[in-house]
Amino acid sequence: MLFFVNDYCEGAHESILSRLTRENTCKRPGYGSDEVCASAKEKIRRACESPDAQIYFAVGGTQTNQLVLDTMLQPYEGVVAVQTGHIALHEAGAIEYTGHKVLTLPAHEGKMISSELESLVRDFYEDENHEHMVFPGMVYLSHPTEYGTLYTKEELSSIREVCDRYGLRLFVDGARLAYGLGAEGTDLFLPDLARLCDAFSIGGTKCGALFGEAVVFGKGPAPSRFLTRIKQHGALLAKGWLLGIQFDELFSDDLYVRLGLHADRLADKLRACLVQKGYRLLLTSPTNQVLVVLQNQQMEQLASKVRFSFWEKTGPDETAIRFCTSWATTEEDLDRLLEIL
Amino acid sequence: MLFFVNDYCEGAHESILSRLTRENTCKRPGYGSDEVCASAKEKIRRACESPDAQIYFAVGGTQTNQLVLDTMLQPYEGVVAVQTGHIALHEAGAIEYTGHKVLTLPAHEGKMISSELESLVRDFYEDENHEHMVFPGMVYLSHPTEYGTLYTKEELSSIREVCDRYGLRLFVDGARLAYGLGAEGTDLFLPDLARLCDAFSIGGTKCGALFGEAVVFGKGPAPSRFLTRIKQHGALLAKGWLLGIQFDELFSDDLYVRLGLHADRLADKLRACLVQKGYRLLLTSPTNQVLVVLQNQQMEQLASKVRFSFWEKTGPDETAIRFCTSWATTEEDLDRLLEIL
Amino acid sequence: MLFFVNDYCEGAHESILSRLTRENTCKRPGYGSDEVCASAKEKIRRACESPDAQIYFAVGGTQTNQLVLDTMLQPYEGVVAVQTGHIALHEAGAIEYTGHKVLTLPAHEGKMISSELESLVRDFYEDENHEHMVFPGMVYLSHPTEYGTLYTKEELSSIREVCDRYGLRLFVDGARLAYGLGAEGTDLFLPDLARLCDAFSIGGTKCGALFGEAVVFGKGPAPSRFLTRIKQHGALLAKGWLLGIQFDELFSDDLYVRLGLHADRLADKLRACLVQKGYRLLLTSPTNQVLVVLQNQQMEQLASKVRFSFWEKTGPDETAIRFCTSWATTEEDLDRLLEIL
Amino acid sequence: MLFFVNDYCEGAHESILSRLTRENTCKRPGYGSDEVCASAKEKIRRACESPDAQIYFAVGGTQTNQLVLDTMLQPYEGVVAVQTGHIALHEAGAIEYTGHKVLTLPAHEGKMISSELESLVRDFYEDENHEHMVFPGMVYLSHPTEYGTLYTKEELSSIREVCDRYGLRLFVDGARLAYGLGAEGTDLFLPDLARLCDAFSIGGTKCGALFGEAVVFGKGPAPSRFLTRIKQHGALLAKGWLLGIQFDELFSDDLYVRLGLHADRLADKLRACLVQKGYRLLLTSPTNQVLVVLQNQQMEQLASKVRFSFWEKTGPDETAIRFCTSWATTEEDLDRLLEIL
Repeated sequence: MLFFVNDYCEGAHESILSRLTRENTCKRPGYGSDEVCASAKEKIRRACESPDAQIYFAVGGTQTNQLVLDTMLQPYEGVVAVQTGHIALHEAGAIEYTGHKVLTLPAHEGKMISSELESLVRDFYEDENHEHMVFPGMVYLSHPTEYGTLYTKEELSSIREVCDRYGLRLFVDGARLAYGLGAEGTDLFLPDLARLCDAFSIGGTKCGALFGEAVVFGKGPAPSRFLTRIKQHGALLAKGWLLGIQFDELFSDDLYVRLGLHADRLADKLRACLVQKGYRLLLTSPTNQVLVVLQNQQMEQLASKVRFSFWEKTGPDETAIRFCTSWATTEEDLDRLLEIL
Repeated sequence: MLFFVNDYCEGAHESILSRLTRENTCKRPGYGSDEVCASAKEKIRRACESPDAQIYFAVGGTQTNQLVLDTMLQPYEGVVAVQTGHIALHEAGAIEYTGHKVLTLPAHEGKMISSELESLVRDFYEDENHEHMVFPGMVYLSHPTEYGTLYTKEELSSIREVCDRYGLRLFVDGARLAYGLGAEGTDLFLPDLARLCDAFSIGGTKCGALFGEAVVFGKGPAPSRFLTRIKQHGALLAKGWLLGIQFDELFSDDLYVRLGLHADRLADKLRACLVQKGYRLLLTSPTNQVLVVLQNQQMEQLASKVRFSFWEKTGPDETAIRFCTSWATTEEDLDRLLEIL
Repeated sequence: MLFFVNDYCEGAHESILSRLTRENTCKRPGYGSDEVCASAKEKIRRACESPDAQIYFAVGGTQTNQLVLDTMLQPYEGVVAVQTGHIALHEAGAIEYTGHKVLTLPAHEGKMISSELESLVRDFYEDENHEHMVFPGMVYLSHPTEYGTLYTKEELSSIREVCDRYGLRLFVDGARLAYGLGAEGTDLFLPDLARLCDAFSIGGTKCGALFGEAVVFGKGPAPSRFLTRIKQHGALLAKGWLLGIQFDELFSDDLYVRLGLHADRLADKLRACLVQKGYRLLLTSPTNQVLVVLQNQQMEQLASKVRFSFWEKTGPDETAIRFCTSWATTEEDLDRLLEIL
Repeated sequence: MLFFVNDYCEGAHESILSRLTRENTCKRPGYGSDEVCASAKEKIRRACESPDAQIYFAVGGTQTNQLVLDTMLQPYEGVVAVQTGHIALHEAGAIEYTGHKVLTLPAHEGKMISSELESLVRDFYEDENHEHMVFPGMVYLSHPTEYGTLYTKEELSSIREVCDRYGLRLFVDGARLAYGLGAEGTDLFLPDLARLCDAFSIGGTKCGALFGEAVVFGKGPAPSRFLTRIKQHGALLAKGWLLGIQFDELFSDDLYVRLGLHADRLADKLRACLVQKGYRLLLTSPTNQVLVVLQNQQMEQLASKVRFSFWEKTGPDETAIRFCTSWATTEEDLDRLLEIL
């Protein structure tokens, strides 16, 4: 059975595992106050060209979103996301659990459009009853989006401008950021994100680590008493150096971007092959998620040989599915998939 | 420098690390729905002699307490703990963050006394204004306690009886449970905990794992939609098998108990030696935490050679400190400590 | 200046004020445990033909919605409402503040359609990832809706059937219920609501009282420890009899329905006159809210003589506005409005 | 039957009721944006000699405490109160419901002692693990306390100094403030409270109003978007002028203080008489609550003639009970009570 079902079905890049093994008996202080965390943070700051950025680590993606949004929003504020945004749909209400509403906009291949954001915020402030409504306090984007698409630097800048005009903060969920950074033709890199976002996350779980997400606060300090709030959220890892080691490795020798490049190149090859064989892509994206429309019969046959994700019904007899490559996908696996298709 | 500062300053038992390495490229479904998690749960059920117990894994200790208490309490209920209980003091208000009050009782060497629990609950129900107060819904104990002390089977049974009489649930925080199970003279074992508690945790973080706690619901099903609530709390690990592998190893060949035994034996030796040398123990406990009173001058000299924890001032010129052994402490380290003392 | 701006700009029906004055020095126990509250509840039970219904009083509308939804939802559940529903738009995130997501459906003149509700719930349960999503646990409707429209008995029964099929509870927000009960042609009366809803509110604030809403739990007991939860929400009125007196009066001699009838008759007259004079109604509704489209110039002229509400822009040169009659609107006021139009 | 059971068993001072009646058909804008609220606030500002104070109204006492503490605390902060404080014991966990811990100190006849507050805060900041604990962010006092006792200006100033030294805010719950202001020998008046507290409440419910509490922010603006947060808490009254009218009357011609004086004078007379007749007072306080120790047999006989509150058992055969006078207690009622005693 071939696995193209998601990008978190394997362990970690070998450099991470071997370092964990090598340093297993080092004695280190807890809660991220160790020197490996310091080193990892310094490497991330350098990669972001953002020497003053404050950086924190968390264990998982939903946890990171919940933690960052809850602490950066005022209690009377909500967060604006597209309807297909991860926080809007697939996080079991983790944002609302912290008391904040997710205000939604239409998604365009998973992306938010700055003019629609502006309309929402402008209409809000023009409404004479807006004091009886949830204040839009922050924008949540994912990059790559849930559809594998990417923002351009111009698009993100345009959203930033709206944020500046109305006093909103901007957060980018980079759970799959490696695959965005490694995409052909992208013009959005870490320094851009650090400059344009109030905060963004650098996903480890789906990008070569066992687990872990880094949060970069590039435009100002982290929310006050952030360590205490991580603890209060039940999100503080006792052995914080486990996160430090993973990110220290991922940010050595450009490993993080190289892992993204690898998966994206395989996905590009898969997309090209699918098109060549006459398959219809649901949309074209440059990252590691490949959305393709199959006849239902085709889909069923395929299911006996390869694991993929159901995406959505696109007609009575056809269905869009998702193939996912990852940092761990081998050239051999891809070739075997291409043979089957 | 010697390290006796805590029991979470190193990585994991080698059997865990080598298995993680060995199975790093196995492809597994996410969120704990894999076969390793199933195997680990089955081993825990067997160790608990509780074939119907429902078992879940979480990443950290505060997270586990927050998750279990929040989901087992009704919204109008609080949890009863002793004043020195971890949830009452050192979890940054993680319980209150979920809306529940921690109702406190005096601690007796870290322990709750059933008669004081009974008084609290009886007084509550006898108060004609109790509908304007927080209902005591659950009891939180730690075993070993924060002072390293242990409940006897009789003491825990007595607390259980009070719970039964007044409809309270009982939760035991076993963050250091291995050191309780391995203690000389203890009569409380896993099957007792499974039988007496509505839920209890089996700590991995401090007992040989990289991270991870298992929660055992022995007397009935887990709270409904528990997976969804773990997600909602930001506590669902994508690669759930990381927890599965760790507990599968810890519950093979009694490793978990053996790790506890090892640390406790070293702590016993340390206690005996301290007493012999004329030091005064703050209290005698049979587990891996050794609380000893030092003259301040002694303490300062010692600090240049060994890391320990400040515990509390016991007089103008003396201080109680804590030495902690762990699954990873070596006989050699202990001998060097004994030489210094 | 004429006032048709809303239905809460005056005090209370004179029978309420005179009774408050008459009984001002009666000494009564607090928190609703008095005999007037008991009498009012009994009258409501009779009007609902629901002898076992449990009834509670709260002070305001948002408070009532927040209290009922928070206590009837499981923590992992959200409430389904239409996009124009009061809880979705105009309650400052009061529902999310309690941790629950508002799941939205399109509004059809303010109403929910049962088939769309069914699709939402069915799709949810068919989604293999639904455990990572918010469970739809309850339906929120308002009757009359925010647009003044009404559900028929058939429509409400149809929504009830979907709720039964999927285990959802049904709540009807009756902030303006008097105007629904008094509407010409309605076939939904109190006994129907008590039979079809798990809970519904009977609004006092907009229907003749100084303040106050009654909540009727017709199909089973109120959520457990409901008084304590009211207190926990900060919603328990010390002098509960103030609510008892108001509802005791409103439910004497059909006063509540008569107040609705009065306002609806005036609104019918206003609608007929507007149509006759060639105005375009935004929609036709049978209750006390009259939505009419005006040329912007007309609107501005009118604004100097009468207070009304801006509703929405319907074109570059025209705007929908709302006239509201109420229990307190006099025939004379209406005639003066008709002269102006 | 005589009633000395509490101070909220009757309606409102007649000037309030007659004004409500007189102005019942005035048409006013909602949510407190009317001119009566403005007038009432101005009168309170003048009484507080605090021309820049921001003032808001809420309906009830628990609601007020919940609203003010939740909005003035940072999410990682708790509030310090004495163990007998209303928020610590008798508000059904309304503070914890908003996510904040109540940190407790011993009560001395219901009062907090500044040195004990200082110890708590100093110990907190000296604890090297304080980032894992709840930050003390605010102090909650009640004046009069739950025992009817009062702070002196010196005592309150001393607590203020500790707050200033450690960056805590200070809130005084004035649910019974009239009885504090009217007490013989008190040296704490409204301008002192406005100067010393970040916020304090002026209770209406127990002091002559039907319901309602005013909150005075004397040292800076109210928490941002306060109206929205009141709404979000379900605490915004649609007909806000009902609160305006009540406080406008209470702050005309010193009515508020006069009502307190009246009740305190009667309570003084009762205390004097009790002492003279050989009864033992539980403590001496200068306000409207009289705590006296009775033989159980005496207590039972008395219960057939007068309603009072059980306070606490003081021995096997004796019990402390509370008599409460109020703004509404008549000289005749008191004389009849004195005859019985």
